Amino acid sequence: MFIEWGPNRSSAQSLHQQIVDWIKQQITRGEWPVGTKLPSQRSLADSFGVNRSTIITAIDELIADGLLETKLGSGTFVSNNTWNVLVSSKQPDWKNYVRNGLHEPNLKTIQDINQFETDTAIIRLGTGELSPALLPTKQIEKTLRSTSFDAHSLGYSEPKGDKRLRQCISVYLETKGINASPSSLMVVSGGLQALQLISVGLLQKGSMILHESPSYLNSVHPFQSAGMHLVGLSKQGRESIPTQMKRINGRKKASLFYTVPTFNNPTNTTWSKEERLNLLSLCKKEQIPIIEDDVYSDLWFVKEPPPPLKSLDADGLVLHIGSMSKTLSPGLRIGWIAGPITVIERLADIKMQMDYGSSALSQHLVAEWLASGQYSKHLEWLRLELMERRDFTLTLLNQHFKGLAEWQIPQGGFYIWLKLCKPIVNPNLFKQAIKENILLNPGYIYEPNNHTHIRLSYSYASEEQLAYGIQTLSKIIRRLV
Amino acid sequence: MFIEWGPNRSSAQSLHQQIVDWIKQQITRGEWPVGTKLPSQRSLADSFGVNRSTIITAIDELIADGLLETKLGSGTFVSNNTWNVLVSSKQPDWKNYVRNGLHEPNLKTIQDINQFETDTAIIRLGTGELSPALLPTKQIEKTLRSTSFDAHSLGYSEPKGDKRLRQCISVYLETKGINASPSSLMVVSGGLQALQLISVGLLQKGSMILHESPSYLNSVHPFQSAGMHLVGLSKQGRESIPTQMKRINGRKKASLFYTVPTFNNPTNTTWSKEERLNLLSLCKKEQIPIIEDDVYSDLWFVKEPPPPLKSLDADGLVLHIGSMSKTLSPGLRIGWIAGPITVIERLADIKMQMDYGSSALSQHLVAEWLASGQYSKHLEWLRLELMERRDFTLTLLNQHFKGLAEWQIPQGGFYIWLKLCKPIVNPNLFKQAIKENILLNPGYIYEPNNHTHIRLSYSYASEEQLAYGIQTLSKIIRRLV
Repeated sequence: MFIEWGPNRSSAQSLHQQIVDWIKQQITRGEWPVGTKLPSQRSLADSFGVNRSTIITAIDELIADGLLETKLGSGTFVSNNTWNVLVSSKQPDWKNYVRNGLHEPNLKTIQDINQFETDTAIIRLGTGELSPALLPTKQIEKTLRSTSFDAHSLGYSEPKGDKRLRQCISVYLETKGINASPSSLMVVSGGLQALQLISVGLLQKGSMILHESPSYLNSVHPFQSAGMHLVGLSKQGRESIPTQMKRINGRKKASLFYTVPTFNNPTNTTWSKEERLNLLSLCKKEQIPIIEDDVYSDLWFVKEPPPPLKSLDADGLVLHIGSMSKTLSPGLRIGWIAGPITVIERLADIKMQMDYGSSALSQHLVAEWLASGQYSKHLEWLRLELMERRDFTLTLLNQHFKGLAEWQIPQGGFYIWLKLCKPIVNPNLFKQAIKENILLNPGYIYEPNNHTHIRLSYSYASEEQLAYGIQTLSKIIRRLV
Repeated sequence: MFIEWGPNRSSAQSLHQQIVDWIKQQITRGEWPVGTKLPSQRSLADSFGVNRSTIITAIDELIADGLLETKLGSGTFVSNNTWNVLVSSKQPDWKNYVRNGLHEPNLKTIQDINQFETDTAIIRLGTGELSPALLPTKQIEKTLRSTSFDAHSLGYSEPKGDKRLRQCISVYLETKGINASPSSLMVVSGGLQALQLISVGLLQKGSMILHESPSYLNSVHPFQSAGMHLVGLSKQGRESIPTQMKRINGRKKASLFYTVPTFNNPTNTTWSKEERLNLLSLCKKEQIPIIEDDVYSDLWFVKEPPPPLKSLDADGLVLHIGSMSKTLSPGLRIGWIAGPITVIERLADIKMQMDYGSSALSQHLVAEWLASGQYSKHLEWLRLELMERRDFTLTLLNQHFKGLAEWQIPQGGFYIWLKLCKPIVNPNLFKQAIKENILLNPGYIYEPNNHTHIRLSYSYASEEQLAYGIQTLSKIIRRLV
């Protein structure tokens, strides 16, 4: 539970009384149903900005009133006793609803990360997102200042999304060697929604999804929640991925292969052109469609990466996912899928059932940025900035992690896949780091048994934060090794 | 299939050759996989803006090339023969993927409606959306002109959505008598996404959903697609809805009750305060949570409607859904859910897995409109405009539908639930209307066996279109009766 209220220090009422009243209100309004677990005393004291003793007094009073109860060793809960039963006796058993919903919850670590990310004091060493300093905020404001809308565009969107935006994306994809007409493109609210739509729109329960491991797909659940299972293939193994695919597909037919072939998340590896051609030729033979998650490829530093799989695909084998989240702004929530028109129309129909289309404001802004050339200008600047951050971070790693870890030099994207010399990447390390105000993306969220890697990102934290954070992290690790 | 390409009339190449080349390209690129059904010759001719004979020549050539084939009585398809097999022999069987995906497709009629709505020549007599003329386009542009962003707000959103927006919604809900703290609120991309999240976040497969019939829920599939089944209760029946609920719930436990209690979609009925209190008391006793879909209640004409269910609920029984789509602009894709905090946190966690939050631009704009009072000023104007449209439409009905149909006088919202004197509301009527360029929302999409009702809307079509459309519709109906 995350609390966004605090007592009023200039009120005549005592702090503890304000807290008592507020908690009572949460319970009587039904916002905290019976069985709700309260945050720890320490965390309540932090949220409210009061001493722990004030919290203890307030909670004791509420226990005396019968509104709360403590269960030894497991914390304080909204109680189920008479007084409470009087106010909310017949409340539905929400706890049961929450527990039994179809969709899997996020991994606990991911939930924690999502929540800690809202804390501005924390240093985010793994965040896969551009730093606020790298977002073209002023230029976006400028575009909005000169925006004029056709009123029709503020209505419900057509199923595949705004036509002008799709035309702009089609032209943009041509620069990457991809021929996709506007009709074979659809707009989505970011790459994750693309995966969600593919999952419920094209696959059956029990489908087998192949993917490279470690994988972004282990940190999100679009396929798992719909009852599909994931089989990880290793690019580092003795066998090539096509060989592994062929062997597995011989036993049970795979429904698709998911890959981030350029500046991978989390490993930052990139498939060579030859590897891409081999993959396509094998997938064609085995009739395995490919999802190409291509959200980082605009972020190369010195040399353009090999062409996207989709540009090498003459067979309608590849569903290509792109996005503005990693390059322009995640807050826009704009991405796209290119693929065979029958597939796109099916996915667009489902999108109409999910959210009736993406934000017209966001679609309009992205179309403007693509059409005016502002997007490519922004990319030129962004690449240099990211490269500087990469270099700065590599210098820090050389200073503080020599002998402690190994890493590759990124040629683009956001990430350094840091391999520690000892398998100490576990929830304890995560917690130790949080204590020092450092938020990590540990390897085990991308590969369940991985206790050696950390996904570092040079895209988010400021230089100052990187300097302090990486040094502090090295100290924590030295302590644990 | 919906085609957005046309031949270039100033090209040296003949029209039919351009069409042949373009269709070839669609096939060889894999955009039209094997088995794809082509639109009819007439519709291709329309799309391309050429004579039907040009289409026939082009298709004949492609058939001769072996790329297309005709199946007697069912149309022209991308063929599966040798030449084609050479270019795309081992394409995945996309048709099979599309057919077997988990999520149900939209009803055919709804798909048609979604598609016809993109045709600007058509008169939309049933569209549940504000007319472009009623959207405050200029004022939205004005707000954007003075917008300045905190760069952080352009990053990924926190799970429940932008904090300032949630604070503004909390204050706005207070004016409706609803106490919901910002922590017990989450932002969604429109009301439909709220239903989607509730469906996969809180319910088990096989759950029973009670709802009023006819119902908006029959025209969208958030629950059906996740394997729940719907049981319709009738407000017009001899038994009251609470009595029906009690009886049904005695046999099998209902998971929730869905209602649009104010200016219902499609019937435009409104529950009285007494009916609301009775419903709450029964649902409390039977422990059935309520989803209150409250997206029309700001649109009253003369008298404010009874208070929302949520404002009368001291037990955390109600999940309250609101939205800006029906009042400010559907293109913003901004709505919200208010409910017990544990439920909201579960739903917010799932939203993070679906699309990582709603558009920052849209969230920012709505916060501005709520905070500045512009939203309520806009509502004052909008109510008068809608009332004028209602009156205009009622005059037309009196002119053209006396003796043909019955209707109620709407006190707010968008809809007139027109009851024809004969059960002729069927796919044929829909088709006859389309022939005259009129798009209808027939009763059977809200209630499968309903062949007497049409959902008319006075919110979308212009006065001119309403005048022509309603007169023409009456002629079509007279012809069929």
